[in-house]
Amino acid sequence: MTDPAGLFGGVETGGTTCVCALANAAGEIAARCEIPTADPQTTLTEIAAFFRDHDLPQAVGIGSFGPIELDRQSPSWGHVTTTPKLQWRDANVAPWLRDELGVPVVFDHDVAAAAYGEYTWGAGRGLPSLAYLTVGTGIGAGLVLDGRVWYGAVLPEVGHIRIPRVAGDTYEGSCPSHGDCWEGLACGPALAARYGSDPAGLPPEHPAWELEAQYTAAGILAISLVVSPHRLIVGGGIGRREGVLLRLRERVRELFNDYLHNPMYNEEIDTYLVPPGLGADAGVLGAVALARDHLQQATKGRAD
Amino acid sequence: MTDPAGLFGGVETGGTTCVCALANAAGEIAARCEIPTADPQTTLTEIAAFFRDHDLPQAVGIGSFGPIELDRQSPSWGHVTTTPKLQWRDANVAPWLRDELGVPVVFDHDVAAAAYGEYTWGAGRGLPSLAYLTVGTGIGAGLVLDGRVWYGAVLPEVGHIRIPRVAGDTYEGSCPSHGDCWEGLACGPALAARYGSDPAGLPPEHPAWELEAQYTAAGILAISLVVSPHRLIVGGGIGRREGVLLRLRERVRELFNDYLHNPMYNEEIDTYLVPPGLGADAGVLGAVALARDHLQQATKGRAD
Repeated sequence: MTDPAGLFGGVETGGTTCVCALANAAGEIAARCEIPTADPQTTLTEIAAFFRDHDLPQAVGIGSFGPIELDRQSPSWGHVTTTPKLQWRDANVAPWLRDELGVPVVFDHDVAAAAYGEYTWGAGRGLPSLAYLTVGTGIGAGLVLDGRVWYGAVLPEVGHIRIPRVAGDTYEGSCPSHGDCWEGLACGPALAARYGSDPAGLPPEHPAWELEAQYTAAGILAISLVVSPHRLIVGGGIGRREGVLLRLRERVRELFNDYLHNPMYNEEIDTYLVPPGLGADAGVLGAVALARDHLQQATKGRAD
Repeated sequence: MTDPAGLFGGVETGGTTCVCALANAAGEIAARCEIPTADPQTTLTEIAAFFRDHDLPQAVGIGSFGPIELDRQSPSWGHVTTTPKLQWRDANVAPWLRDELGVPVVFDHDVAAAAYGEYTWGAGRGLPSLAYLTVGTGIGAGLVLDGRVWYGAVLPEVGHIRIPRVAGDTYEGSCPSHGDCWEGLACGPALAARYGSDPAGLPPEHPAWELEAQYTAAGILAISLVVSPHRLIVGGGIGRREGVLLRLRERVRELFNDYLHNPMYNEEIDTYLVPPGLGADAGVLGAVALARDHLQQATKGRAD
């Protein structure tokens, strides 16, 4: 049985930091911590300690960087798989935490968790569909369609679509697999390589941000024209930077050029392209929401 | 009540030809005709005459060229709206046919009907999701997700995404709204403008087909990476041309570059990128399937 007063755990694992939170069924955070991402054993032990030091949650959701194994029937369910972060290759994440804490664990992609968080408590609350785009160290998107995370056959991995080059940009691209795909042209490391400087330190008027907006607008156009989400939420370290969203709205509007005569892609674009309602907590709160809804469905399933 | 032995009507309206069919609930065609597309009144009168000359169907489905009004609450439901085909602008299609025949009429996009036809009786039968891509006079795709046509907030209109130019191709693009979007670079009229000849007459070894494959592979990559359908069916006058699908499979495989380590995008790409199981009848049979399932749901709804 679900305890209506009980807490749920959320974990967002990232390349440099992991965020943990304990929250109630309404998404109100009771405790939160950030843990630097080290090797899996050290990191997961600290995550488990966070939950044990507070009230033990009824269930834990994890939004993980990828690639990961989502298939519950697979022996490697809940593992990170072929990541270039060598220490984390084949790391046992979800089963380890489940056994360590003795509670059910839900395992999903970081962008799927963030999309579900925004659907549940954020900028896409109750909408028939949304896309959550993250632009940062990598570029990816999670989709919530008809109230559920959409996985498709393999995995949406929108960062690797091909988009036209901006005239004059000769950077070869940073993607090890595709060179100048969207991610290869517009992720944080691509900006850093082009300008020889961490993009976090570049001022708002630096030409990097106009280039970023032009590339990312082409990617947003593709998401919009393939699946037509009701809202597109722009997150991630670069996506949430001041000024980037304003530029994106202008560039996306230009690319549509009023083709579909729909205000959502024109004068009302501010209501279509929006920042995360949960800010930097979209991922960890989404993991909480996945844990809550998993447990409620499991309880319902047993009652049926 | 649905008569299990009764027939359903399907209509696919196209820029040059309309196809009509009468079929049973298993999609077996009892009668079929093609009508040259003239002005709406002439064309619709001939379509109505086809159905009246045979057994009157229990319901009729229409898969229409666009843009069209799908909202059943709108006073212009069932009309073609802002099409550049001036005779068809604001043409009353579905309500007219419904009143003329006195049977329920379902109205949808041509690509949505074709996708639903392939899901019901064709190359995507019973799959959790599929995309039906048409490459011909225009470029567009219909999605069936979890057994239902996916509409999204506005409309999937994938032909208007931006893709990189092939080196050396200087053609400015044929799209009146976007110039060199995917459709502007790779639709039939774009090939005709580049090579000064109807592409239907170009031999299989003509360089047009390699260019077409490179552009269309980039579009297929975008559909695959945004929504990850279980199968992608390639239809349309150009898409169904001999040799085009073989080239597309090679180019798409190259673009993925085994990034996701999934055989579906690599050695098993022949099972992912496939021709329509219903051939040129995907659209009209999809319209039949939409009519059948609409009536069954309506009957069920009344019984509830």
